[in-house]
Amino acid sequence: MPFESRRRARDEKREAVLRTAVRLFLEQGYHRVTLNDVAEKLNITKPALYNYFRGKDEILFECWSLGQERVDELIAEIDRGGGTAFARLCKLVHAYAGLMTTDFGASLVRFDPRDLAEKNRKVVRAAKKRVDRTFRQYLADGVADGSIKPCDPKLAAFAIAGSLNWIGHWYQPDRAWSSDDVARQFTTQLTEGLANAPARKRSPTPTRKNKPAKGGKK
Amino acid sequence: MPFESRRRARDEKREAVLRTAVRLFLEQGYHRVTLNDVAEKLNITKPALYNYFRGKDEILFECWSLGQERVDELIAEIDRGGGTAFARLCKLVHAYAGLMTTDFGASLVRFDPRDLAEKNRKVVRAAKKRVDRTFRQYLADGVADGSIKPCDPKLAAFAIAGSLNWIGHWYQPDRAWSSDDVARQFTTQLTEGLANAPARKRSPTPTRKNKPAKGGKK
Repeated sequence: MPFESRRRARDEKREAVLRTAVRLFLEQGYHRVTLNDVAEKLNITKPALYNYFRGKDEILFECWSLGQERVDELIAEIDRGGGTAFARLCKLVHAYAGLMTTDFGASLVRFDPRDLAEKNRKVVRAAKKRVDRTFRQYLADGVADGSIKPCDPKLAAFAIAGSLNWIGHWYQPDRAWSSDDVARQFTTQLTEGLANAPARKRSPTPTRKNKPAKGGKK
Repeated sequence: MPFESRRRARDEKREAVLRTAVRLFLEQGYHRVTLNDVAEKLNITKPALYNYFRGKDEILFECWSLGQERVDELIAEIDRGGGTAFARLCKLVHAYAGLMTTDFGASLVRFDPRDLAEKNRKVVRAAKKRVDRTFRQYLADGVADGSIKPCDPKLAAFAIAGSLNWIGHWYQPDRAWSSDDVARQFTTQLTEGLANAPARKRSPTPTRKNKPAKGGKK
């Protein structure tokens, strides 16, 4: 096999290991899964796993990394796209919510960094900070450019993060909602209260009798 | 001492134990705290603790119970108050967010029910379901009475719960925000996107030049 094909084949096998491992970790809990379980599921031997990874905690870290890479890509993509800070925030909430419904996305919040080697734990901690800073930055930028109501960006980012990260804990692919259902509902719910000039996307909603005197719509 | 005073004195001592214990559990983690640590902090002996509690896991359960009692009271109070379902939802989000900034509130989400006796674990599980059902009910009632935009109440409740429960993890009394700051910001952020006809309480917000035709962004 030419070098490129060999590398591709190896990468694919490696990713297959991660896909299987992350599923087992999520289903049974990291500590209850052995490398034998992973190997068995893949129909390979445990020593064969060592061709790709040095140990179980490295597999855990690589699962996390695939999720984190996706987050980094999303942010880069959004930053390239421009728009108001509020628009960027909406895109990020939408994309992040969708990612949380995937296995590698869930791995960002379901595992305990204390199970990782010190070196990797640091990488995780730095990445979490980076994502957190991005949310805060969009919020601060939005207050500055007038697309977001005056608010404390740190506090507002906590409200968003808690809600989004929780998806990784409760979402099951076989539940009633698609990834897109979740992303849409969470985006509406977590961003509209922040918008300085929210627009209604829906057809006119039924009006209530005691209509409040002012504000935001109609 | 007459019976009533004796009982009151006992209740007060019991609550002092719980206040000290919950603080230690939150600061150091339940598993790292010994009954000796609790007794020492209170300037009593470990056997004296057994006058009030059968063991550490019972203390944990009683801390949780004090938080849960407060939630139950809040809900009963809100239900007595009437108003649209949206108004009740706002009150619950506000009150629950405030509670989460307290030690007993945080104990609702920071401890692992698996550390409790089976019997108590069941109580916790039932209470969590009850609270969850209340949020869903308010949301469903709001869709029905027109105060809340059409949405999937289960999904909307997940978005709220994740955000609110996360407060119990990050909030520190010495942080920049008071309990009330948190409650207000979270209420705005988690409910306005749901309101069918939300009233703006603030003075008119600065309008942007390119007012979006739809979709909250340019």
